[in-house]
Amino acid sequence: MKENRVIGVVGLGLIGGSIAKDLHKVGYDILGFDSNPIHIKKAIGLDIISRGLELEELAKSADVIFVAIPVRETGDVIREVMDSMSWNSVVIDTGSTKKNICQSVRSHTKRGRFVAGHPLAGTEYSGPQAAIFDLFKGKKNIICEEHLSDEDALDIAVEMFDELGMQCIFMDPAEHDKHMAYVSHLSHVSAFTLGTTVLDIEKDEKQIFNLASTGFESTVRLAKSSPHTWSSIFVENSDHLLKALKYYISELEKFKTAIEQKDEEKIKDLISEANEIRRVLNGLKYNIVKLS
Amino acid sequence: MKENRVIGVVGLGLIGGSIAKDLHKVGYDILGFDSNPIHIKKAIGLDIISRGLELEELAKSADVIFVAIPVRETGDVIREVMDSMSWNSVVIDTGSTKKNICQSVRSHTKRGRFVAGHPLAGTEYSGPQAAIFDLFKGKKNIICEEHLSDEDALDIAVEMFDELGMQCIFMDPAEHDKHMAYVSHLSHVSAFTLGTTVLDIEKDEKQIFNLASTGFESTVRLAKSSPHTWSSIFVENSDHLLKALKYYISELEKFKTAIEQKDEEKIKDLISEANEIRRVLNGLKYNIVKLS
Repeated sequence: MKENRVIGVVGLGLIGGSIAKDLHKVGYDILGFDSNPIHIKKAIGLDIISRGLELEELAKSADVIFVAIPVRETGDVIREVMDSMSWNSVVIDTGSTKKNICQSVRSHTKRGRFVAGHPLAGTEYSGPQAAIFDLFKGKKNIICEEHLSDEDALDIAVEMFDELGMQCIFMDPAEHDKHMAYVSHLSHVSAFTLGTTVLDIEKDEKQIFNLASTGFESTVRLAKSSPHTWSSIFVENSDHLLKALKYYISELEKFKTAIEQKDEEKIKDLISEANEIRRVLNGLKYNIVKLS
Repeated sequence: MKENRVIGVVGLGLIGGSIAKDLHKVGYDILGFDSNPIHIKKAIGLDIISRGLELEELAKSADVIFVAIPVRETGDVIREVMDSMSWNSVVIDTGSTKKNICQSVRSHTKRGRFVAGHPLAGTEYSGPQAAIFDLFKGKKNIICEEHLSDEDALDIAVEMFDELGMQCIFMDPAEHDKHMAYVSHLSHVSAFTLGTTVLDIEKDEKQIFNLASTGFESTVRLAKSSPHTWSSIFVENSDHLLKALKYYISELEKFKTAIEQKDEEKIKDLISEANEIRRVLNGLKYNIVKLS
């Protein structure tokens, strides 16, 4: 019964705001909390939440609580929520890294009421004003350590993600973090760095305006992403990300050497290797799913 | 009079094919040449060109000849075309680098009949099958060394680009190459390298399928681009590109160090700097134009 299930959303940014927006639309009562009071005001103004509450009050009043804040703070906040919430409630996080978060709540008496989630959705924008309808529709949500969640809590979480239009996949948290370093976190470092390089080296910004085409726009798009969200992810997933980053730099050095030597055949080989990514992207189109 | 102007297209790939397709649609007779005979057959089958001719025949028969082949071969082919074509004809190239091409034709007796162009348009696909209608519509075309083109030749070229829906901007060839290294060629190296890194390091491709989201897709999109086209560009523009690439690697090292030190504040600063690219991308949306 939607009218009987009260939803709490902690963190009213892009992810939390978009969850609230979708669930509010289908009739849930949404309580919101954000450490930034301006975000609460904005979220009410934008009709994303019904009202704002202090964290403890929200934890006590909501049946399902989503925690959608920077990953480095997520573990602490989940534990705070669990301390206050009832034994019937469920708390779900949406963090982009999972190992440390799972570890930090493992010994909590209410661990069974927690479901570790990561909806694979987002845009390069942030804050409540970035919240949009249907952000999650047709996308995947990763759930980690599902065996440590109570069966009914897991059911409720899967049901909520289903309401958002998401398919749930189960995965080990360490595996999750390793894979995300390659397919998401590294892309962000590469885009941020492309952004700073072009801005620093190309002093004449009017020429960037003139000459940048859609290729540049798509490659650099993620460079608009939030500093707080991503610095938190990079530190939290530093081991895997550093491995990916070192490999990336060594691959760049290969390109650099081949270009220095004007070795067209070598460059062609490197590009042909990269072209293999087509298979992966075609796979994405067909939405291939493997349950692990 | 469209029915009276015969167009020749040398190189029936993405760019040449798309030029032919648009101009064929509005009624021009299109002659095609490609060093790969399969491309000629395909282009006829796809109704991109009216018929295929040998290069010399094409040069003799067409009033306007587009040369849309890898940049390292462009200068030679333009000169070959100029040797055979009439004094009334115009040859236009579409190469992504301009300095060497302009230099290599500068002393030809028919230099005035050449217009050095670079339409800022493309996709990550290649070959005649990649040719699409309206690829150029609303985009910009750079013309270099316009003072070395005869007035009527320049008029005809601008008219042709206008037919394709393009706005022409004039620019010095060395300046063009420098700016393109930053806003286009570097993005391609970064995407190719991201592609090889993810493929090499992430052995479990099914997990790439599962976990890659739209962010990864947009950042890596250019990694599907043609080896022949891009190896040619990278070698041709190696000086500027190496400068950009070295700077890019040094910026990556900054990120790496900050992540190694788990210095969240430093990472935030680096990301905030990168966020400034928003201004540039917003500029793109408004299609700001500066004539140089």
